[in-house]
Amino acid sequence: MKNLVKIKRALISVSDKSSLNKILSTLSKYKIEIISSGGTFKKIERLGYKSTEISKFTNCTEMLNGRVKTLHPKIHAGILNIRKNKKHQSDLKKNNYKNIDLVIVNFYPFENTIQKTKNFNKIIENIDIGGPTLVRAAAKNFKDVAIITSPNNYETFIHQMNILKGSTTLQFREQMASYAFNEIANYDSIIANCLNNKFKNFFPHKKTFSGKLIEKLRYGENPHQNAALYSELDNFSLKKIHGKPLSFNNYNDIFYGLSISKLLKKNAGTVIIKHANPSGVSESKDQIKSFNSAFNCDPISAFGGVISCNYEIDKKLANKINDFFFEVVIAKGFKKDALKILKKKKNLRLIDAKNFNNKSNFSLLFNNNTFLYQSSDSLDFNKKNFEIVSKTKPSKNQMDDLIFAFNICKFVRSNAIVICKNKSTLGIGAGQPSRLDSCKIAIEKANTFRPLIIENSVAASDAFFPFPDGPEKLIQAGVSSIIQPRGSIRDKEIIKLANKTKTVLVFSKTRHFKH
Amino acid sequence: MKNLVKIKRALISVSDKSSLNKILSTLSKYKIEIISSGGTFKKIERLGYKSTEISKFTNCTEMLNGRVKTLHPKIHAGILNIRKNKKHQSDLKKNNYKNIDLVIVNFYPFENTIQKTKNFNKIIENIDIGGPTLVRAAAKNFKDVAIITSPNNYETFIHQMNILKGSTTLQFREQMASYAFNEIANYDSIIANCLNNKFKNFFPHKKTFSGKLIEKLRYGENPHQNAALYSELDNFSLKKIHGKPLSFNNYNDIFYGLSISKLLKKNAGTVIIKHANPSGVSESKDQIKSFNSAFNCDPISAFGGVISCNYEIDKKLANKINDFFFEVVIAKGFKKDALKILKKKKNLRLIDAKNFNNKSNFSLLFNNNTFLYQSSDSLDFNKKNFEIVSKTKPSKNQMDDLIFAFNICKFVRSNAIVICKNKSTLGIGAGQPSRLDSCKIAIEKANTFRPLIIENSVAASDAFFPFPDGPEKLIQAGVSSIIQPRGSIRDKEIIKLANKTKTVLVFSKTRHFKH
Repeated sequence: MKNLVKIKRALISVSDKSSLNKILSTLSKYKIEIISSGGTFKKIERLGYKSTEISKFTNCTEMLNGRVKTLHPKIHAGILNIRKNKKHQSDLKKNNYKNIDLVIVNFYPFENTIQKTKNFNKIIENIDIGGPTLVRAAAKNFKDVAIITSPNNYETFIHQMNILKGSTTLQFREQMASYAFNEIANYDSIIANCLNNKFKNFFPHKKTFSGKLIEKLRYGENPHQNAALYSELDNFSLKKIHGKPLSFNNYNDIFYGLSISKLLKKNAGTVIIKHANPSGVSESKDQIKSFNSAFNCDPISAFGGVISCNYEIDKKLANKINDFFFEVVIAKGFKKDALKILKKKKNLRLIDAKNFNNKSNFSLLFNNNTFLYQSSDSLDFNKKNFEIVSKTKPSKNQMDDLIFAFNICKFVRSNAIVICKNKSTLGIGAGQPSRLDSCKIAIEKANTFRPLIIENSVAASDAFFPFPDGPEKLIQAGVSSIIQPRGSIRDKEIIKLANKTKTVLVFSKTRHFKH
Repeated sequence: MKNLVKIKRALISVSDKSSLNKILSTLSKYKIEIISSGGTFKKIERLGYKSTEISKFTNCTEMLNGRVKTLHPKIHAGILNIRKNKKHQSDLKKNNYKNIDLVIVNFYPFENTIQKTKNFNKIIENIDIGGPTLVRAAAKNFKDVAIITSPNNYETFIHQMNILKGSTTLQFREQMASYAFNEIANYDSIIANCLNNKFKNFFPHKKTFSGKLIEKLRYGENPHQNAALYSELDNFSLKKIHGKPLSFNNYNDIFYGLSISKLLKKNAGTVIIKHANPSGVSESKDQIKSFNSAFNCDPISAFGGVISCNYEIDKKLANKINDFFFEVVIAKGFKKDALKILKKKKNLRLIDAKNFNNKSNFSLLFNNNTFLYQSSDSLDFNKKNFEIVSKTKPSKNQMDDLIFAFNICKFVRSNAIVICKNKSTLGIGAGQPSRLDSCKIAIEKANTFRPLIIENSVAASDAFFPFPDGPEKLIQAGVSSIIQPRGSIRDKEIIKLANKTKTVLVFSKTRHFKH
């Protein structure tokens, strides 16, 4: 086989010492010399293997409490020299330096540290300098050197060594080099963003994001696209407890559903999502009532949708859910008997989101090699910020419904019109280039599915009405209170219309575009 | 002032040697000793300043054609020691090492190299090892050391030095450390993704993305959000040649517009975008005809929209455009007299996209600290892949219109229904949880604005029709050819309906969800 490299000497410096014994027995089997540093050296000794301490190898004592250990030309020339290059080889010989053919390194646990402490000195001390340098050097020289950055790759490595009797293939080294640079880029991206936050450098000249692979998906938004789900955080807190693997579109709808659920009163909210838009949302302490109201807003669109419940589902609701076809049910846990009922449906996916508390403080829109990066639309509403501009003043219930409706707008694609009553959506008009069209859609939904209760409902608009035609249609349909940001040159005409029709008109002073 | 650090010794190793003289004169003014490497050393000499070569400083010759220069404990202890730490200071003294208080380093031009060559050895050689180590070490020790990674920061540095007579503030060093880690993370993210592509590691365990700041924006999708535009590529090829700064929502619509424009026949396509959905699209070699058809699809929604023309705008069209209110006009250039006319409108933004050829091979959806990462929906259509399943066969014109309509579907939020005729949209139904509703919206648009030509039009659906009700409505409205992926258990009923009504029915076998 071409391009096999026999390993004679390995450098090991690992923060994660799990499964080290497996590696050591393999290295010992092929009589590979080991160089190691402080903690790793001790661990190797304790496991009953021999290794040379780096300071002995370089003849240069470890300095600055470990800040300078491996940053030595003897180490890096040993890694970085091209074995086929005569000049490199004569340089090596001249200095009496030796090849290092395998590097096993992982880093100081920076991410773990920022999750555990706010002590900034401790955080800074966990920025590894020597480790990333070893990894980058070994990965650069993958033609001659194997680099292993994670215990996850030990098995493959050992398998390779056993089959090839102490050698590795070029293909293996290439893969490992690519893993290594992903590891480094992720490590430094986390450090960079930690410093950006600390030093309030919110829009740096170069901005990096990273995530950990949670799951490769069967395909993407469409079957001809490949896809995977990544998480910025170390622990992914959604737990699938039943059903087939989730699809790309499932996940997208799940995250939409959870975003809305988080906004609703605790243990009281049901959201149904279809095609990344809510088809119905309702808040009620009574599970069945909450589910029914969300469902009845658009029972046709709810078919095959994703339900997100911010409460623990009980038996009664489980039976109710089983009357219909949904793809996914998300809940803050399931009662035992409820779970038993829901599990009867083989194709229904059940997600326990009890521990889900993700909270992005930014959002991103990717397009054509660019990204629009922004802080999240996470403004907290306060009744005091609202301005009641009509002569008719809202009742407490009306005001609560107006705020509820306006909050839902935040999650409906622009232009968004949301008609509500009793903390439940009656009609949602989404994603139209014309606001009047969104009004018409919301009204038609309410007239079709909730004709008996549209009278005296409230409506919210994610941005201002440019003309009085939208409010006019809504009022004609039975809406008696409207909330919108304000800002049109025709605001006065709209106030006049409200007063003429005794409609409540509230200015939120906040816009909620979402595209 | 607290935490000022006086600079006595600087290490300089720069790939970008621009503006070096400015820095050198400042360093010389404050009698700062300089250590430098190969190319930088020569340049410093040529500029008439003195410096010590790193190999002399470390007493260790440069090795492996420059692969090992600065990876030496004398350098890194000089950078990394904590000046207040007694143990560190005694370590330093013992070895007779000296402090390095300023590090000015930028990296081998990796990104530039991958843009210029496909020679993989050359690419690999441009992975800088020593540079990033110096930068990471200096940035980690920002309490004592100043790190400068870009000539963009020379001015601030020089200003600081002059005011503080050779010292820097902690705040400055913190900012520079944060810049440095952004620089590193970006550099390694580009390397990681280059290796991922080369070694076909498309969904690595850790995935990093990065971009360069193009523009801080006045605000985000809404006024209470902060935002900026970033580009993955080094050169951002859109050129604003007139008008106020672009907003977040402008940019979003611009990228949508350009994506659609790219798909249309060269020098023949007009797209109007509103709220991240096309409100009209048309293909014709006659600019006025192309514009009129796109505009007339929904003249109300076009108000305040973004026009994207994949041709050079002439005087006649400029006059036409000025009859209406648009926020942005994008074109493949503007004739001189056209530009003069359009510039009369102060608030109209004009974008020259002549050099725009961005092409993402992936897309990302961010939500709640997660991201869904997928390959782009960039399938090339081929008539041969389509299956004509109705007895009535399409004419060449119908087939062309079907393909046109189906391609537009790709850019319309799901569920998407697009009615077309003569390579122009007549009605677009976007973003509805129910496919039937999207049909109704598309039909209503066509009936409202293009009632005279809806007869014998074609319709495309981004995903399969679950029931025959959607096609039924379309056929009743005048549609005589329909394209859709197939896949419903009721496909046969829909074929039957097509045959009964002598409608052309084509299965694309491809889905185009977009959320």
